[in-house]
Amino acid sequence: MKSDVEIAQEATMRPIGEIAAKLGITDDELELYGKYKAKVTPETWQRVKDRPNGKLILVTAINPTPAGEGKTTTSVGLADAFARQGKKTAVALREPSLGPCFGLKGGAAGGGYAQVVPMEDINLHFTGDFHAITTAHNLLAAVIDNHIQQGNALDIDVRRIVWKRVLDLNDRALRHIVIGLGGKAHGTPRETGFDITVASEMMAILCLATSLEDMKKRLGEIIVAYSRDGRAIRAKELGVTGALTLLFKDAIKPNLVQTLEGTPAFIHGGPFANIAHGCNSVMATKYALKLADYVVTEAGFGADLGAEKFLDIKCRFAGLAPDAVVIVATVRALKMHGGLPKAELEKVDMAALEKGLANLTKHIESIHAFGLPVVVAVNAFPTDTPEELAFVEEKCTALGAEVALSEVWAKGGEGGLALAEKVAAAAEKPSDFHFIYDTAQSIPEKITAITRTIYGGEGVDFTPAAQKQLAEIEALGLDKMPVCMAKTQYSLSDDAAKLGRPEGFRITVRELRVSAGAGFIVALTGNILTMPGLPKHPAAENMDIDESGKITGLF
Amino acid sequence: MKSDVEIAQEATMRPIGEIAAKLGITDDELELYGKYKAKVTPETWQRVKDRPNGKLILVTAINPTPAGEGKTTTSVGLADAFARQGKKTAVALREPSLGPCFGLKGGAAGGGYAQVVPMEDINLHFTGDFHAITTAHNLLAAVIDNHIQQGNALDIDVRRIVWKRVLDLNDRALRHIVIGLGGKAHGTPRETGFDITVASEMMAILCLATSLEDMKKRLGEIIVAYSRDGRAIRAKELGVTGALTLLFKDAIKPNLVQTLEGTPAFIHGGPFANIAHGCNSVMATKYALKLADYVVTEAGFGADLGAEKFLDIKCRFAGLAPDAVVIVATVRALKMHGGLPKAELEKVDMAALEKGLANLTKHIESIHAFGLPVVVAVNAFPTDTPEELAFVEEKCTALGAEVALSEVWAKGGEGGLALAEKVAAAAEKPSDFHFIYDTAQSIPEKITAITRTIYGGEGVDFTPAAQKQLAEIEALGLDKMPVCMAKTQYSLSDDAAKLGRPEGFRITVRELRVSAGAGFIVALTGNILTMPGLPKHPAAENMDIDESGKITGLF
Repeated sequence: MKSDVEIAQEATMRPIGEIAAKLGITDDELELYGKYKAKVTPETWQRVKDRPNGKLILVTAINPTPAGEGKTTTSVGLADAFARQGKKTAVALREPSLGPCFGLKGGAAGGGYAQVVPMEDINLHFTGDFHAITTAHNLLAAVIDNHIQQGNALDIDVRRIVWKRVLDLNDRALRHIVIGLGGKAHGTPRETGFDITVASEMMAILCLATSLEDMKKRLGEIIVAYSRDGRAIRAKELGVTGALTLLFKDAIKPNLVQTLEGTPAFIHGGPFANIAHGCNSVMATKYALKLADYVVTEAGFGADLGAEKFLDIKCRFAGLAPDAVVIVATVRALKMHGGLPKAELEKVDMAALEKGLANLTKHIESIHAFGLPVVVAVNAFPTDTPEELAFVEEKCTALGAEVALSEVWAKGGEGGLALAEKVAAAAEKPSDFHFIYDTAQSIPEKITAITRTIYGGEGVDFTPAAQKQLAEIEALGLDKMPVCMAKTQYSLSDDAAKLGRPEGFRITVRELRVSAGAGFIVALTGNILTMPGLPKHPAAENMDIDESGKITGLF
Repeated sequence: MKSDVEIAQEATMRPIGEIAAKLGITDDELELYGKYKAKVTPETWQRVKDRPNGKLILVTAINPTPAGEGKTTTSVGLADAFARQGKKTAVALREPSLGPCFGLKGGAAGGGYAQVVPMEDINLHFTGDFHAITTAHNLLAAVIDNHIQQGNALDIDVRRIVWKRVLDLNDRALRHIVIGLGGKAHGTPRETGFDITVASEMMAILCLATSLEDMKKRLGEIIVAYSRDGRAIRAKELGVTGALTLLFKDAIKPNLVQTLEGTPAFIHGGPFANIAHGCNSVMATKYALKLADYVVTEAGFGADLGAEKFLDIKCRFAGLAPDAVVIVATVRALKMHGGLPKAELEKVDMAALEKGLANLTKHIESIHAFGLPVVVAVNAFPTDTPEELAFVEEKCTALGAEVALSEVWAKGGEGGLALAEKVAAAAEKPSDFHFIYDTAQSIPEKITAITRTIYGGEGVDFTPAAQKQLAEIEALGLDKMPVCMAKTQYSLSDDAAKLGRPEGFRITVRELRVSAGAGFIVALTGNILTMPGLPKHPAAENMDIDESGKITGLF
């Protein structure tokens, strides 16, 4: 069987100008990055912004398992299927992070015959957007420490600097560090740490900003620290908002590449789905909706995390509403949710399947709670039996969701035609989209609504530390923003071990953070790491490039 | 008077394909980064590598002063002047670092009417080369700490890890840090720090590598740590040399932009001139020499640092020999070397000028010691008087150096025609290029040769710590490499306060570091900071971009 990078390398890519032309984008409106990548410029937006939107299809999934679900693969294949049906189509995805690429995953650009290309570039530096975030984030951090060094006119409390530093790598040794050692010339000693770049609030800002001007405003609003008398200190008080914005002058422009079948693919932004809102940029989605009749986009992890935040945060800020939602599942992963160990997933075990299906049906109910139609995409594996597939279909249909088998991994867009038909039909249905909570509610009310309606839990507890933060946030008048839940992706609950459809549980919020620039409150539950570590054998060990430029080990 | 960014923004740039065509590079051989930047691919090299080389002109300077010398400006203007004379010309420069850009300098792409453009892009992320270095450098660091976390099979001595981390920013608080805090899951506590990216050995490697294969080999040879029994541990033992090389697959390709007058400009690599060898990449220089009849390149800081390392390190590794050397000076800076304070530089003070001229004449002697012809470029200021200029010319001519006034800042290539004529004539002279030392000499012998011949000092002392390191390096058999001197740029000596032409001094080496991948020994004298700090008012405070994309505050 060919690896993803082998399939990708065999593909004949078309010059990106030809792909852009499918959406009516002219060569003049493109900034090329090599022959197969481009940024789409604001000139395009000015030309098309008053057009009606195309249909927006959100692809989400059951809670992820080690068995794999294939959400990006399904998104790409579904878009290719729409294109095969003669529809003007675009897919809008997130940019992969270098950390997981060198750590566990080795790449993230779809798989099999449903990939975006050039996958080597997309998986590595791409067009430099994440590097811009790393640079701007760390410039702001350096300016904070420099401000203290130069006299601390803002009276920053060095124990309450909340702006850390970032690198786009998995590097656990940087989680907890002490900086400013070595004496007076080298700063003030203090505790801090590094997060991974995708966890930066600036990543969330890049993905929520609607223009460079909006971006500048949001960057200025970031709360970087508190003064010794408890005042929130904003980035704009440090005088470098212009410089920070300048660093994003290119990163803010959506990137355009292509699928293996030549469908236009916007890939732009990639905030962490557990700590941030986890979907591609508002600008890329909006560009795509003006330029294509069908836009397929994805949200990170399972529907409880990614889709909830896509709908309650991104759609709220951007004034978007999806026309249909696709939930991706595999028979294997459902059996794992039903308790079958990974080594035994090829076995037919209807009891495990039935038990695990409850995870999928909960997500169907959740999307219905948003007032949106659901199509379940069963990502096909050779070991699936007709009996298992029929059982999945029966249960989903009973809830009013359509079901289609997706074979895009093996067959590309051809394998997604049945899915595309059901999705197109669902997108024509009248929908009644509404949010799960109102931003005017209190933070506990908002989190309770999410917990009950989306997670299926009973309620929310705040640790004493979180209660103190809650009181502070309310006192600062910052509580009327959406809540961005930081929670394990593996379970509907905040306990990664509770697979399937746990019931009767409560969520524990142990920390609240204010992302005043992004415009949301982050509620951390359980143990969310914002800087991953490398495994014993990092994926980087398999990677190589030879003198001819041929790359191996990305998958 | 217009600012540099204003002049640059008024320029009408030509599409980079037109600029490349001046050197016979076809559109197919270019990878575009927007309309005005491109990378030149190895296909070009394969096509031209057997051609004879053009003339190589090295531009260097007196020891820098706060009065400013204008070395990059002179390099650009000289190239434009050659082009005006109908010569097929290219200029080969270093990429600016973001740290100084946001710190003190606000940009580094020439000045006035002798600039490279698009200066905003060149000064910011450009084509991402430095970000590739930051990423690869820090991936290697993360892999080292992960190796220890996963069992430390190589028996790395955590007290002797010499590979730090880097960021392309000025951030003094990261100079001395403790990482790995927070308990067992978060690494092993140890002291380390961050350098600025341009100080990374990987930057030196990028600039010395002759191919991707050579780069991979050099990356593998990097000494990252020592084992508890004193063995040098190389990067290749960590199994990620392939992944590191992969991160450089685009960064290794030279970048092409243009001067304000449309002369092709290679801008590639930018190692620190005090801690590393301080000149643009070997590959860019070699490409330029095959593609142009006249190639103007520069080396960092004064001739004692940049030119010495250009000649003894870069030329030695790459088999290059310049045909002529230009030393840039200003009357103002010479008066400053003669003791006149910055506020009084507009005064005519022949005594100060004569005293300061000794700095220039020492550099002329040094370049002559390499067997190369010298042309002095006096970078004109409106306050210069005919009396002063005549005096400079008289003293230089007495040493056998040609002298020309350069007015390229105010007039572009037109202002460099006189200089270009003298340089072209000098480049036709027979030269007798030879190195100052032989790599087979001992480290003290090599440093003594540089100190006596180039700095004009009497000898070298090693601190006890450096003596211990010397013994170790000799025991490891690593001492037969060139020496890369890390010294203050402000003085011929290792004491920044000794301006002009100090005499009778000795150099103190306080530390020796092995850059086994780059292929040299770094000898640190005085207090060389490898991570700068920000000033009280960083240049970043002046920068802005408006909604139309117009940029201010870069200069």
